[in-house]
Amino acid sequence: MTDNPVAVVILAAGQGSRMQSDLPKVLHRLGGVPLVGHALAVARTLEPEQVVVVAGHGAEAVTKAVGKLDPEARIVLQTEQLGTGHAVRQTLPELEGFEGKVIVLYGDTPFIGEDTLAALASHHADVVVLGFEAEDPGRYGRLVVTSRGLEKIVEYKDADEATREIALCNSGVMALDAGLLRQLIVRLSNDNASGEYYLTDLVELARAEGRRADVVTCDEAETLGINTRTELAAAEAAFQSRARAAALENGVTLSDPGTVWFALDTAIGRDAVIGQNVVFGPGVTVESGAEILPFCHLEGCHVSSGATVGPFARLRPGAELGGDVHVGNFVEIKNSVLDEGVKVGHLTYLGDAQIGEHTNIGAGTVTCNYDGVSKHRTTIGAHAFIGSDTMLVAPVTVGAEAVTGSGSVITEDVPDGALAIGRARQATKPGLGVRLMQALRAKKGK
Amino acid sequence: MTDNPVAVVILAAGQGSRMQSDLPKVLHRLGGVPLVGHALAVARTLEPEQVVVVAGHGAEAVTKAVGKLDPEARIVLQTEQLGTGHAVRQTLPELEGFEGKVIVLYGDTPFIGEDTLAALASHHADVVVLGFEAEDPGRYGRLVVTSRGLEKIVEYKDADEATREIALCNSGVMALDAGLLRQLIVRLSNDNASGEYYLTDLVELARAEGRRADVVTCDEAETLGINTRTELAAAEAAFQSRARAAALENGVTLSDPGTVWFALDTAIGRDAVIGQNVVFGPGVTVESGAEILPFCHLEGCHVSSGATVGPFARLRPGAELGGDVHVGNFVEIKNSVLDEGVKVGHLTYLGDAQIGEHTNIGAGTVTCNYDGVSKHRTTIGAHAFIGSDTMLVAPVTVGAEAVTGSGSVITEDVPDGALAIGRARQATKPGLGVRLMQALRAKKGK
Amino acid sequence: MTDNPVAVVILAAGQGSRMQSDLPKVLHRLGGVPLVGHALAVARTLEPEQVVVVAGHGAEAVTKAVGKLDPEARIVLQTEQLGTGHAVRQTLPELEGFEGKVIVLYGDTPFIGEDTLAALASHHADVVVLGFEAEDPGRYGRLVVTSRGLEKIVEYKDADEATREIALCNSGVMALDAGLLRQLIVRLSNDNASGEYYLTDLVELARAEGRRADVVTCDEAETLGINTRTELAAAEAAFQSRARAAALENGVTLSDPGTVWFALDTAIGRDAVIGQNVVFGPGVTVESGAEILPFCHLEGCHVSSGATVGPFARLRPGAELGGDVHVGNFVEIKNSVLDEGVKVGHLTYLGDAQIGEHTNIGAGTVTCNYDGVSKHRTTIGAHAFIGSDTMLVAPVTVGAEAVTGSGSVITEDVPDGALAIGRARQATKPGLGVRLMQALRAKKGK
Repeated sequence: MTDNPVAVVILAAGQGSRMQSDLPKVLHRLGGVPLVGHALAVARTLEPEQVVVVAGHGAEAVTKAVGKLDPEARIVLQTEQLGTGHAVRQTLPELEGFEGKVIVLYGDTPFIGEDTLAALASHHADVVVLGFEAEDPGRYGRLVVTSRGLEKIVEYKDADEATREIALCNSGVMALDAGLLRQLIVRLSNDNASGEYYLTDLVELARAEGRRADVVTCDEAETLGINTRTELAAAEAAFQSRARAAALENGVTLSDPGTVWFALDTAIGRDAVIGQNVVFGPGVTVESGAEILPFCHLEGCHVSSGATVGPFARLRPGAELGGDVHVGNFVEIKNSVLDEGVKVGHLTYLGDAQIGEHTNIGAGTVTCNYDGVSKHRTTIGAHAFIGSDTMLVAPVTVGAEAVTGSGSVITEDVPDGALAIGRARQATKPGLGVRLMQALRAKKGK
Repeated sequence: MTDNPVAVVILAAGQGSRMQSDLPKVLHRLGGVPLVGHALAVARTLEPEQVVVVAGHGAEAVTKAVGKLDPEARIVLQTEQLGTGHAVRQTLPELEGFEGKVIVLYGDTPFIGEDTLAALASHHADVVVLGFEAEDPGRYGRLVVTSRGLEKIVEYKDADEATREIALCNSGVMALDAGLLRQLIVRLSNDNASGEYYLTDLVELARAEGRRADVVTCDEAETLGINTRTELAAAEAAFQSRARAAALENGVTLSDPGTVWFALDTAIGRDAVIGQNVVFGPGVTVESGAEILPFCHLEGCHVSSGATVGPFARLRPGAELGGDVHVGNFVEIKNSVLDEGVKVGHLTYLGDAQIGEHTNIGAGTVTCNYDGVSKHRTTIGAHAFIGSDTMLVAPVTVGAEAVTGSGSVITEDVPDGALAIGRARQATKPGLGVRLMQALRAKKGK
Repeated sequence: MTDNPVAVVILAAGQGSRMQSDLPKVLHRLGGVPLVGHALAVARTLEPEQVVVVAGHGAEAVTKAVGKLDPEARIVLQTEQLGTGHAVRQTLPELEGFEGKVIVLYGDTPFIGEDTLAALASHHADVVVLGFEAEDPGRYGRLVVTSRGLEKIVEYKDADEATREIALCNSGVMALDAGLLRQLIVRLSNDNASGEYYLTDLVELARAEGRRADVVTCDEAETLGINTRTELAAAEAAFQSRARAAALENGVTLSDPGTVWFALDTAIGRDAVIGQNVVFGPGVTVESGAEILPFCHLEGCHVSSGATVGPFARLRPGAELGGDVHVGNFVEIKNSVLDEGVKVGHLTYLGDAQIGEHTNIGAGTVTCNYDGVSKHRTTIGAHAFIGSDTMLVAPVTVGAEAVTGSGSVITEDVPDGALAIGRARQATKPGLGVRLMQALRAKKGK
């Protein structure tokens, strides 16, 4: 956060043709969320007055995704891809009347850090460029800095020998005074090899006006941009590696860190135990002291202290597990609240349900929440005992301390303390099992 | 493919005692198929007139496996292990009358490439040896090449200092004119330290006849042979690494490439999404735009565009998923066709079934396809609604738009549009649940 | 083992504050068992007369864990953490009357090998220190050795330049003559910077008495101590890496060794096949020729030759699978014996059960072993056929060659050869399925 008003522009219009994909590049996922979600998330740490996303290729899909990730972000369209300067120019109507810093980020550059962004936002110069010391500067644009600050940005192909010796490279990320941006952006020219309007040209224009330009630096790793699936895979590996190290430092027990996948917002408490092969989708909180056994898939859920989950469990969005809840193997929980001490040990589907504390759900239980047209809710009270293979045909309510018999189909509400049973009485026919099998074998033999 | 007639001989008689295994070495799996399957698959790219496999140790198992992998391949037995020359000699009766090139491959050398084989097949020399520049030539045999072509192959132990300086090594793979092979192979001698007949000696015999020998080279990686389980594990890692890179290049989305295992023939379309921890056995096709969530196991199946599978799903041989089909968690599909839009969300086993389009299969449904003696089929029409925990006792047919009640056992055919239900009515006994539990506690307390 | 009487002292009182954990450090798991379990296991290989564990931080939890791991080990409390000398002193009452060697190990140093320990135990000197040549000696204490043996141990901070050049470092592990230990330990002083009593000071005290001290060396890897979660993760990786290599050498087939997790005591036979992503908890034996498919979780169980398990199966403690048993996907077995040839293919929970040979358990079967208060057993005879979705309400017995109908709830014993069925007859109502759905849609539309 910074004291000056900030607006963030995120450029997300590129096609990313090297991704070999029909999906717009910024919608490819990293840490469980679309790439553009990383830029949106770090932008929000500045508490900006405005966030404007420039969409182009796949604008419809990008608009929809941004709307889910950050409903307050505005979208503008860049219908032609005429360069970064042109893209930022499309945001001016949205930024009308805004006075302060405009920070330009990229939807395919997910690792810019919160501290880096804060440094850009709080810098006093009129134009601030984010630079980095490249281990191999290669074909990056170089930042020419003198005692008066940043003189200019020189593209590699235009750089002479001496300039190519400079290791300080241009990340593309910039912070500009809003008034200055409005004044200068109309002066950008596309008189260059690509015929595009480059945002970087604003540095020289600002200097020519006698305005100050300067550089803020960050680690090269923060500036990693993604252009191919191989780069995306490498970025994912880097993201996971940092997330795993952070979890270990925070006192999370990871049986094999390399087989736990975190999402951007995964929150895990100290002394939580995470077994091998656990995938966290977005929106998961695991409290201190909970245990997730191997082979689990969690998304949009909350696991309270003392709860144990898995192995082979799936918690879907809206699963809320209270303290000491036990969810065992081959169990799926969706949009359901399990109060303290509930046990769901085996082979069960709970969807759209509310389960009272210390209730026991038998193996093979299903909340029949879908009737073919609509979804309905199941409500079960505290200290109930749901027998194995109980079908709970929603909407239905089972009271506290109620019991259902194994194999029952519960279609009507069950009052507190009642026993509900719906099954045929067992008939046992001596000798018939053997004769049945003999008949089947004889038939097959024919 | 090549214009000249080709026959391929695959040597697969060795025991592989360093594998520490009762399984013949060439039957150990790589990329989901036995090692010998790799040689068979690349051999077929030449469209050869004949493929002959030499079996020895574990010949019965090898014969059976080869019969499944390539029913047209012939098998000959080498009852004694008297060297590569002796092994090839056993194939002569099968090759009687064949005129053209005989290419000798090895069942434990799975990475010879299609292009390499084509280069061998189309080379004009009478004897062509596949060589490679070894990074560390070590104890490989060396290829002595002059302006006249390949002079001879010198075993490391017989090589003088100068010859050991040669980096060009012998892979063992050869292509020979069939007539020349027949003429010379009878002249091979076993007058050497091991008392074996070496195929490599044919080079000198051919040169002595004034025939031309030459070398085709390939990457060292292609010549990797497998002798221990550790080498097999390394080969598997190399195979997977290449398969993962190829998938990324082809535009497949892999959430974590290192946790997806491909088989030799896995085919995945562009923009298909493959989550973490997915195992592909042989025979899987996933169309463009399908999504396989984490923790899935697929074998011998087809997943159409728009379909989603998993997490925690298993598709077994014969599973055919139409467009937009959804197979959810803890679901097993075997030998079943699911037409477009079918949904099987949870905890279900479908075996030997045909499901019409847009039918919904409730949680806990089972096709009871086995009666203890034989397997039977289940047929369900389009737009049907199978209630949770429906047992479909095959053979049985459920019509289009039919509905089954939760917890029903369906033993008789259900006509189109009908409702079938087979369950006891729920009986609810006030207070009895609590009293039952009290009684159980009292009994336990005693 | 050694001929001399041996007692082992394991120091396990530290808090391990750098672990960022409320769990005592020695209870963090490595290879599926608490760290202290590794020291206990290697200690037992000496067949010691006594094993004494010194507990301090989290003594209650440590005492409980040690009691489970090694019921014959004694526990002594060190209520204040006053150094290693002080810790060992607490064990003297337990060692009263013991004559022989006392070996001091550490609960957070899990990799000391059996051979190393034997070398310590059989060495003739009065004081033997375990040393190692450190690749980077850093701040380790140095062992000053002359022709007369070990002269002294010099802490890094007290070492002069010349001493710091010594690469031979102190692991902390020692073997001492019991009588000498009793005589000298009371003379240890805490007149040093930390105010602690150091066990290492015993070397100089012994030398001053004219007793002989000497060094036994081991690989540095054996001396790895664990202080942070990152170190624990690295130790786990090292443990697994060694276990995987050993399995391969022993002739186990691992589809991808890096995705199989072994416990300290996992025992797997030659030519057993282990697929990707298999987690072995403690107490698992897999016989030669058995196959564990991908995505399985096993603990405290036995899998006999010819059995196949998984994918997606969980074997819990007490699962005993006979020869050629098949346990398929989404199946959980707990505390149950499955005789030869039993098949449990899909979506089943067997708990507290005994299943006779060649019995077939249908999909969706559940042993309802818990009535809300107590657990009960299910017994099924040989060659029985349990129909899909059978609920076996324990305690219950199903006889040999008996058959149960799909969807039955079995509450009463079934005699040998009988057919038991408990389900409602199917009622089919023409046209009602369609009308039901129309009504639901109409209702929703309102």
